Amino acid sequence: MREDGRLYDELRKIHIETDYTNYAEGSVYIAFGATRLLCNVSVEERVPPFLRGTGGGWVTAEYAMLPRATHTRMMRESVKGRASGRTMEIQRLIGRALRSIMDLKTLGERTLWIDCDVLQADGGTRAVAITGAFVAVANALATLLKKKAIKKIPLQDFIAAASVGLKNGQPYLDLTCAEDTTVSVDMNVVMTGGGKYVEVQGTGEHHPFDTDELHALLAYAKLGVDQLITKQKEVLGPELTELISG
Amino acid sequence: MREDGRLYDELRKIHIETDYTNYAEGSVYIAFGATRLLCNVSVEERVPPFLRGTGGGWVTAEYAMLPRATHTRMMRESVKGRASGRTMEIQRLIGRALRSIMDLKTLGERTLWIDCDVLQADGGTRAVAITGAFVAVANALATLLKKKAIKKIPLQDFIAAASVGLKNGQPYLDLTCAEDTTVSVDMNVVMTGGGKYVEVQGTGEHHPFDTDELHALLAYAKLGVDQLITKQKEVLGPELTELISG
Amino acid sequence: MREDGRLYDELRKIHIETDYTNYAEGSVYIAFGATRLLCNVSVEERVPPFLRGTGGGWVTAEYAMLPRATHTRMMRESVKGRASGRTMEIQRLIGRALRSIMDLKTLGERTLWIDCDVLQADGGTRAVAITGAFVAVANALATLLKKKAIKKIPLQDFIAAASVGLKNGQPYLDLTCAEDTTVSVDMNVVMTGGGKYVEVQGTGEHHPFDTDELHALLAYAKLGVDQLITKQKEVLGPELTELISG
Amino acid sequence: MREDGRLYDELRKIHIETDYTNYAEGSVYIAFGATRLLCNVSVEERVPPFLRGTGGGWVTAEYAMLPRATHTRMMRESVKGRASGRTMEIQRLIGRALRSIMDLKTLGERTLWIDCDVLQADGGTRAVAITGAFVAVANALATLLKKKAIKKIPLQDFIAAASVGLKNGQPYLDLTCAEDTTVSVDMNVVMTGGGKYVEVQGTGEHHPFDTDELHALLAYAKLGVDQLITKQKEVLGPELTELISG
Amino acid sequence: MREDGRLYDELRKIHIETDYTNYAEGSVYIAFGATRLLCNVSVEERVPPFLRGTGGGWVTAEYAMLPRATHTRMMRESVKGRASGRTMEIQRLIGRALRSIMDLKTLGERTLWIDCDVLQADGGTRAVAITGAFVAVANALATLLKKKAIKKIPLQDFIAAASVGLKNGQPYLDLTCAEDTTVSVDMNVVMTGGGKYVEVQGTGEHHPFDTDELHALLAYAKLGVDQLITKQKEVLGPELTELISG
Amino acid sequence: MREDGRLYDELRKIHIETDYTNYAEGSVYIAFGATRLLCNVSVEERVPPFLRGTGGGWVTAEYAMLPRATHTRMMRESVKGRASGRTMEIQRLIGRALRSIMDLKTLGERTLWIDCDVLQADGGTRAVAITGAFVAVANALATLLKKKAIKKIPLQDFIAAASVGLKNGQPYLDLTCAEDTTVSVDMNVVMTGGGKYVEVQGTGEHHPFDTDELHALLAYAKLGVDQLITKQKEVLGPELTELISG
Repeated sequence: MREDGRLYDELRKIHIETDYTNYAEGSVYIAFGATRLLCNVSVEERVPPFLRGTGGGWVTAEYAMLPRATHTRMMRESVKGRASGRTMEIQRLIGRALRSIMDLKTLGERTLWIDCDVLQADGGTRAVAITGAFVAVANALATLLKKKAIKKIPLQDFIAAASVGLKNGQPYLDLTCAEDTTVSVDMNVVMTGGGKYVEVQGTGEHHPFDTDELHALLAYAKLGVDQLITKQKEVLGPELTELISG
Repeated sequence: MREDGRLYDELRKIHIETDYTNYAEGSVYIAFGATRLLCNVSVEERVPPFLRGTGGGWVTAEYAMLPRATHTRMMRESVKGRASGRTMEIQRLIGRALRSIMDLKTLGERTLWIDCDVLQADGGTRAVAITGAFVAVANALATLLKKKAIKKIPLQDFIAAASVGLKNGQPYLDLTCAEDTTVSVDMNVVMTGGGKYVEVQGTGEHHPFDTDELHALLAYAKLGVDQLITKQKEVLGPELTELISG
Repeated sequence: MREDGRLYDELRKIHIETDYTNYAEGSVYIAFGATRLLCNVSVEERVPPFLRGTGGGWVTAEYAMLPRATHTRMMRESVKGRASGRTMEIQRLIGRALRSIMDLKTLGERTLWIDCDVLQADGGTRAVAITGAFVAVANALATLLKKKAIKKIPLQDFIAAASVGLKNGQPYLDLTCAEDTTVSVDMNVVMTGGGKYVEVQGTGEHHPFDTDELHALLAYAKLGVDQLITKQKEVLGPELTELISG
Repeated sequence: MREDGRLYDELRKIHIETDYTNYAEGSVYIAFGATRLLCNVSVEERVPPFLRGTGGGWVTAEYAMLPRATHTRMMRESVKGRASGRTMEIQRLIGRALRSIMDLKTLGERTLWIDCDVLQADGGTRAVAITGAFVAVANALATLLKKKAIKKIPLQDFIAAASVGLKNGQPYLDLTCAEDTTVSVDMNVVMTGGGKYVEVQGTGEHHPFDTDELHALLAYAKLGVDQLITKQKEVLGPELTELISG
Repeated sequence: MREDGRLYDELRKIHIETDYTNYAEGSVYIAFGATRLLCNVSVEERVPPFLRGTGGGWVTAEYAMLPRATHTRMMRESVKGRASGRTMEIQRLIGRALRSIMDLKTLGERTLWIDCDVLQADGGTRAVAITGAFVAVANALATLLKKKAIKKIPLQDFIAAASVGLKNGQPYLDLTCAEDTTVSVDMNVVMTGGGKYVEVQGTGEHHPFDTDELHALLAYAKLGVDQLITKQKEVLGPELTELISG
Repeated sequence: MREDGRLYDELRKIHIETDYTNYAEGSVYIAFGATRLLCNVSVEERVPPFLRGTGGGWVTAEYAMLPRATHTRMMRESVKGRASGRTMEIQRLIGRALRSIMDLKTLGERTLWIDCDVLQADGGTRAVAITGAFVAVANALATLLKKKAIKKIPLQDFIAAASVGLKNGQPYLDLTCAEDTTVSVDMNVVMTGGGKYVEVQGTGEHHPFDTDELHALLAYAKLGVDQLITKQKEVLGPELTELISG
């Protein structure tokens, strides 16, 4: 049993709230236990230079932590004058994940900006960000559909992400910060509603892992993602779920 | 009557929630209508170089907006690589305001970092920030007192802030964003529980104002600040209110 | 009596010299005692993006200190790679002050850049900057009028600024650097020739102040501004003074 | 058959040259076909602040491309003033990979700086960088051992990396740049001499992939890594290979 | 004859004023015709890290132009966030020139900061800067000598600098900005009172030059430098001139 | 005799290799002894704003060192966020030198970007860079001629550069790093095939030099440049040499 009483393959309590702020086209507050994020999606009616005139759209993400999202206060990246490598890595991952199930032609020449801001961090922020961003993106697209700016919801499937780790040979699903610092292998898996992989990022910095361990981790991740997608469908409602060609 | 049904001298609905996040020594969620901020106070057990060895402490503030706190998305300051002049001006104001009623010697050689992050902006963010920051600072100090790190609460009075404006000769209290863009004079007033001024910042960029107008604006500001301080006392409770030598 | 022999309500010796450099459309050297600035106004025949096509003009300011304008050398902001919060705050104030009495439509689609560079700082640099900038702006506009680029001088009034402070209940006009570090309340007031306020910025970081003290400070500021505007008129000459619709 | 005549599971021509420059403790020139890198390892006799006094060492990496390493010239990151997200992501990966098989206690309180500079890029630069960096690190450690700065080579195993991709269901090993732009799944795998995973990073931005596809990709990667480690052993020679406790 | 009536080998009107500002240890206002600079020297009682504990001192320079020193306004380098290559090149030249005649051991473990700020630029700013900086440095050293911080003036000679150019085979001394844009060869020469070269920087970007032309240019430069050093001696006075072991 | 056995007027072993990388229009690997550089020339079919529509082209250079080009590792300029003054000075010199013999009208509205990257530094990098850049530029132009993008090779002469120094009155040609730190005068001379000067940059930071010393240094530089141009002609071959109107 884990410190917080969960089973090894059990997610933390998931809370998702839509329309959290008034202005963003999609606005989601999401918590996995004490990890709390705000995912806002903004629609911009233009695309980066390399896409102009192609008819296709773009999806990009930015990720940041509030200075006191963590146990001790961190310096703001606007004060340091540059985003850290970790920040860049995470926001690139979020953008890729959301693009993977987006039909960019149907989206049309517009950009979806996904802002994932961590209010409080207790492990798994990149998985929470992707899971919440999907809901916010779906809501933003529903708004565009209602305005007839797009003809159909350009999502080809659901996606969600789970973090998994390995400690003394035992896989763990949805790691807290305390657990994260003790595992020897750390993996983030982004999967679709159809059970396919969008991203697999596993690191054995403290312990190279073998094929059996890889399989065990992927199985735990699938367990988590399946529940998260069920939750996403519940939050988005049957009508919008139906419109997502998953 | 105003667009949102308020009287000219009426505040918006005020909501203050303490212990909003788990890690910060003081953590306050505060809303004036649709303007919503998170004020976190962190205690750092050291002071800037110019104070080392003096026995005195320091209070400093940082202010930022989430990219979609506003009607249209703004670029992150960490992406631009520098804070804007407006950001710097506001965070300097918050820091000065909170230092004005702090007994820095009693605080001892430690720094209070006040982080004011705007989740949603509908006018008056600097007044909301100061009002919320006071509550978060009081809570952080109560934590220090409980740990016996300080001997008494080093606050000499309460402070809160109100924004006021002038439109066609009529003063307005607690401006929304829509009102703010139409007023000819814009003023922020920080006052103590004892009714004294800590900061008066009035700008007649579109209409220089006379002494009578100045008085009318200050009277409205006092009305607002008095109610805000009553609210702060209610939130902090009678015991902590008693300990603040106001 | 004050350390330099002045009365409490007495300005330092004011020196204003026009056409100080050859290239700027308006170029003013201004000194209040040992505080010495160069205010250059440049006319640029275009406006920032948000004004293009509106027919209106813009006025903006930049402020900087030479590294050895102060008792000990300060690092250049070009070396640090960014302007400080203080610099930003001051240049925003100068810009707002000059826009407040400018008829931007009459100015037409052009920008006035006001550069205030401090050669030597002995207190009151923001007041000196605004007072000198007004003269430089008036000269630059006279040049435009002579060239028939504008039909009339688009200034609706004179403006000047004074710094005032409070020490042991006694107001002081036009503070030196030495005085500035000992006052408990510090205020800058920008006023028009017609006696109206354009900016009131008072800070009681070390001593919240009451309404009577506020009045006393404003009265001293008015005394100073009136004399400064008289001086400005003298320097600009009767003809140009006449053209400024004050 | 592939455009360059290779089989799907065939590596490009591998060329590794040691002692390429004179000053670096380990200096390796490595080419996979037209992808050419210089991997230099520098030993610094101190560690980052978070490790001081712990007795343990550190390994970190920096990665950059010469401006004309690519088909069209790219702007230098020193001109842009910041490293891109891609650069940061790659150098973090290289650092993690090399730390995974390093016994940091045996290394002692010193830092190995790995500089991977791409002279010419034709796909797979991160895999080439890790494969070359391992050889350069081994050489730098041999230098330290010879000087008796360390008691034994603190490498617990060999590592190398391969890039693999999936196109129309067919896995490809060691992608060229031309191939890389056409695959639907892109994966980098870092493995040890013992056949374990250190990093698995797979992205199906254009095509979510299933478990069978994942297995096929991992099998191709293993084929590549095994040959690369054989090549590394050949270059390092039997004596040094023996000292690496793989 | 030249546009401004000068002979080819004639300097512009030279004006040097010492003690121009109050705080700097050496403060010189210098003009060559319409080129006007302020050279301030600050003494800092410490040296850069590479000199600590060596007993030797350091001399370094910074150079900047006010935004409207030129015909059209230039953006501030603090706004751009970095000094230009031209700025860096000039300030490195000034620093080297002044170090060349300084006995750094006698100066002791302190740094002389030379700030050369261009109020108005009409050609030759680097020559004017060096010529003025020498006077400011001499004054700063005289202050140190008076305070007995140093035992003797650590200057081994005088230095001054002249700009020369070549146009249709004719050398020109002390070029104005208008002349500078038409010459085919542009040269700056820094020389000592003893007639030796400290720096020779000649550029034939628009016209490679031969040995005879080089000689003619150097002869003109010597003519200029000799007069400038005479002027420096006059400004510094016989007593201080005597103390400079030239 | 010198430490490495050379005569005072003897160059180090020169090695020039063309077509070193595949993508650049001109790509040269050049070594003077242990100083090794890569000079890549890229052709961009547009010019900077100030040349648009003029029909003329541009030549610009960038210079950088790999972090371990030197005895001890240097921090990357992309990490520091800005190029050093030394870097800027050198790249400006390379650009000017190559423009001096380029007929920019014949080049047409395109830009040649010269990237000089130092793989290993043992003195004289700026001379090596210019000498190698000339060959790379000539090759890039030959490519353009072959494609009929230009009508003739727009080079008016050959150029090469030599570093010379003075130690105890003895001139030295082509200084190594060890020699460079002991000389009292340091000079770089860029000359044409016709024996004219393009740049003369001599610095006597540690020893002002007289006219005789200047002549001796220039004579040594000429000796070096003549041999370097002979080598360049050999590498470029008789046909291309013929096309360069030297």
